[in-house]
Amino acid sequence: MRTLVSELPGKVGETVILCGWVHRIRDLGKVSFVVLRDRSGSAQLVFEAKPELTLESVVRVEGIAASNEKAPGGVEVRAGRIEVLSLAAPDLPFPVNQDPGKTSLESVLDNRMISVRSPPILSIFRVQSTVLRCFADALRAEGFTEIKTSKLIGTGTEGGTGLFAVDYFDTKVYLTQSPQLYKQAMVASGMERVFEVGPAYRAEKHDTPRHINEFVSMDVEMAFIESEQELMDLETRILAAIFRGVRESNPRDLDAWQASVPDPDLCPRIPRVSHDEAREIVSKETGRKVYEITPEGERALCDWAFRETGIEAAFVYAYPRKSRPFYTMPAEGNRTHAFDLLFRGLEVTSGGMRIHVYEALVENAKAFGLEPSGLSDYLSIFRFGCPPHGGFAIGLERLTQKLLGLASVKEASLFPRDRKRTRP
Amino acid sequence: MRTLVSELPGKVGETVILCGWVHRIRDLGKVSFVVLRDRSGSAQLVFEAKPELTLESVVRVEGIAASNEKAPGGVEVRAGRIEVLSLAAPDLPFPVNQDPGKTSLESVLDNRMISVRSPPILSIFRVQSTVLRCFADALRAEGFTEIKTSKLIGTGTEGGTGLFAVDYFDTKVYLTQSPQLYKQAMVASGMERVFEVGPAYRAEKHDTPRHINEFVSMDVEMAFIESEQELMDLETRILAAIFRGVRESNPRDLDAWQASVPDPDLCPRIPRVSHDEAREIVSKETGRKVYEITPEGERALCDWAFRETGIEAAFVYAYPRKSRPFYTMPAEGNRTHAFDLLFRGLEVTSGGMRIHVYEALVENAKAFGLEPSGLSDYLSIFRFGCPPHGGFAIGLERLTQKLLGLASVKEASLFPRDRKRTRP
Repeated sequence: MRTLVSELPGKVGETVILCGWVHRIRDLGKVSFVVLRDRSGSAQLVFEAKPELTLESVVRVEGIAASNEKAPGGVEVRAGRIEVLSLAAPDLPFPVNQDPGKTSLESVLDNRMISVRSPPILSIFRVQSTVLRCFADALRAEGFTEIKTSKLIGTGTEGGTGLFAVDYFDTKVYLTQSPQLYKQAMVASGMERVFEVGPAYRAEKHDTPRHINEFVSMDVEMAFIESEQELMDLETRILAAIFRGVRESNPRDLDAWQASVPDPDLCPRIPRVSHDEAREIVSKETGRKVYEITPEGERALCDWAFRETGIEAAFVYAYPRKSRPFYTMPAEGNRTHAFDLLFRGLEVTSGGMRIHVYEALVENAKAFGLEPSGLSDYLSIFRFGCPPHGGFAIGLERLTQKLLGLASVKEASLFPRDRKRTRP
Repeated sequence: MRTLVSELPGKVGETVILCGWVHRIRDLGKVSFVVLRDRSGSAQLVFEAKPELTLESVVRVEGIAASNEKAPGGVEVRAGRIEVLSLAAPDLPFPVNQDPGKTSLESVLDNRMISVRSPPILSIFRVQSTVLRCFADALRAEGFTEIKTSKLIGTGTEGGTGLFAVDYFDTKVYLTQSPQLYKQAMVASGMERVFEVGPAYRAEKHDTPRHINEFVSMDVEMAFIESEQELMDLETRILAAIFRGVRESNPRDLDAWQASVPDPDLCPRIPRVSHDEAREIVSKETGRKVYEITPEGERALCDWAFRETGIEAAFVYAYPRKSRPFYTMPAEGNRTHAFDLLFRGLEVTSGGMRIHVYEALVENAKAFGLEPSGLSDYLSIFRFGCPPHGGFAIGLERLTQKLLGLASVKEASLFPRDRKRTRP
């Protein structure tokens, strides 16, 4: 029976079988130390003769677990029989056992099939898995149903620009920018509360540390709400669940990035400021009058929030109409019932109340230059009874990036797609 | 505070506020009965005067909960004030409150935005949500990590045919047929055990009740296994978890389709037969010598399994090489270490051990007519140390279809895409 590295402390004095990857080899002449990596951690193996091994080879080692204060975890394995299950070629294209921060992002991503073996890089995706779990669990606990909708649509929902076209038999379809239409249809179906986790696409030419062209959208939509404040309440509870989950499940992964996750109990203190207030705060913080909340402003606002509340996040609501999609519920004075969540200087969520009145939606579509006849499937949701509702979407990669303090969102995507990158 | 329909039995004698959709209106002159639908169920409202309502309108009703043995659930609401939140147009395109079995599948799907409001149709997707939850929970409990990988790939993995092309800036990419490459890379990363739930695409011109061109693939991949039997063991545990979950969480949804879910305790009895044995059984069952397991054979095999074990499922392993992809681990006599799971007459899973030896994989790729130079990212996984591993994928829609006994897999996809259907 195989023993996992994490189980070694309970096996001292026993014969164990470990399986894993050769992470490091140190030959001291009389003895050799080999660090073996498995899904639970790393352990030091001691060999009396130097074994014929290459880095990243996969081995099965029989040995005796022995206490050694100097060994990582306090236990090492005096190796006996070793079986090489897969001998790695010597020309490893990426230094798996070195600090990935010393390698360029280009090299990390070009060699993704191998760079992902680097323990700190793998930590990113263990954290991401926890985020996915906590997001779903928090919503299910509040009566939400998980849905899966098509990623191939006939027309765009956000105005028709920025879409990737797909050759679909004899016709063209587009990769969806968000499941917006579908989650609204499902709210109106009587399901009332739905969520979806799935890919979304933006054919934008941006090539920045904030943008990827394919991302995982964690979408929420909810009926019978009276204002966007209820959506911010819900997101606050979701964030607290995610922060709590990552703290509990991923302490080693956080350590790998010297990252800390905000105290979940602070989440209810996340400030909620209107777009006008946000502009004032940013103007004050930066000493320059601002009219838009730029990326620099988003950082300033989060710095301010941190000083005020101890948590580097802020909800901004009452966005101007022109900056939000046509289905956004308008508010007084050319404002909307829409909001963003900024976290550690980055927009990680967009959301708001939606227009649920057919006539108002048709009007607004026209005002945005959209032809209502092209939206007839979508509009039918509202012609035949739709409750007041709203929702939001959290970008999985952006949230992961900010939880760990990664320099680029691309680091938080396993196989990122950007303007130039379509492989591996 | 709003009361959900499901909470009514605890509110008898109290004033309640219900919110929901007008599902049915019955005018008896002196009184009118209105059935109101919300996310938790349906309740009868009694009005002394006929309210001005249309079917599917969304209302907020204040009234007094009262016992009535004849009312569904034993409680009705004597309605007082009613507020119409959204008045539905009278030309409802789909009879939401009638048996959807009396409407053609074409009509159900053409009017999907509205037909999904039909309670039995909504039941399908509540069951599906439970399947998604139980699949993920069962795997997490066994140390699996959830991953999200790109759906846009440079080249096909199953031979390059049947791919949808995407215009990606100045180049072409393709919609992925499965996350096969990526889940293998992640197994080899040291994560060892991964799962993914995401869309997958097949540009096949089939138009049958078994095929859709976009489906949700529930993928699993696992390192350090010695045979495909371990994969069947794992799938057996997952299926039992799903069956148990649906039985516990969805009794009303099962009733809506007069469906029953197999006893989870019977799952370990699912027979495992080799492809040769399966052909013999099918030959015996159908009275005709067969060489391939056709859809008819799959049904015969499940009938046989049900008689033998009480569960309408069978694992078939040792498939011939020519019928499996190039990365499948070969076995003796032109067989493979691959398997399928048939459930209620339909293939719902394909899986198997994969080739983890670089040279063998290169050889096999060539034998399948693939150019190894086009697979260099994929092949690097195996050049640099890869453990023995395998995995499988469960089709979410097919499993849902068979759990509920739906005639077509398209019914189990919220917004299905087929040869001709690209909307809504």
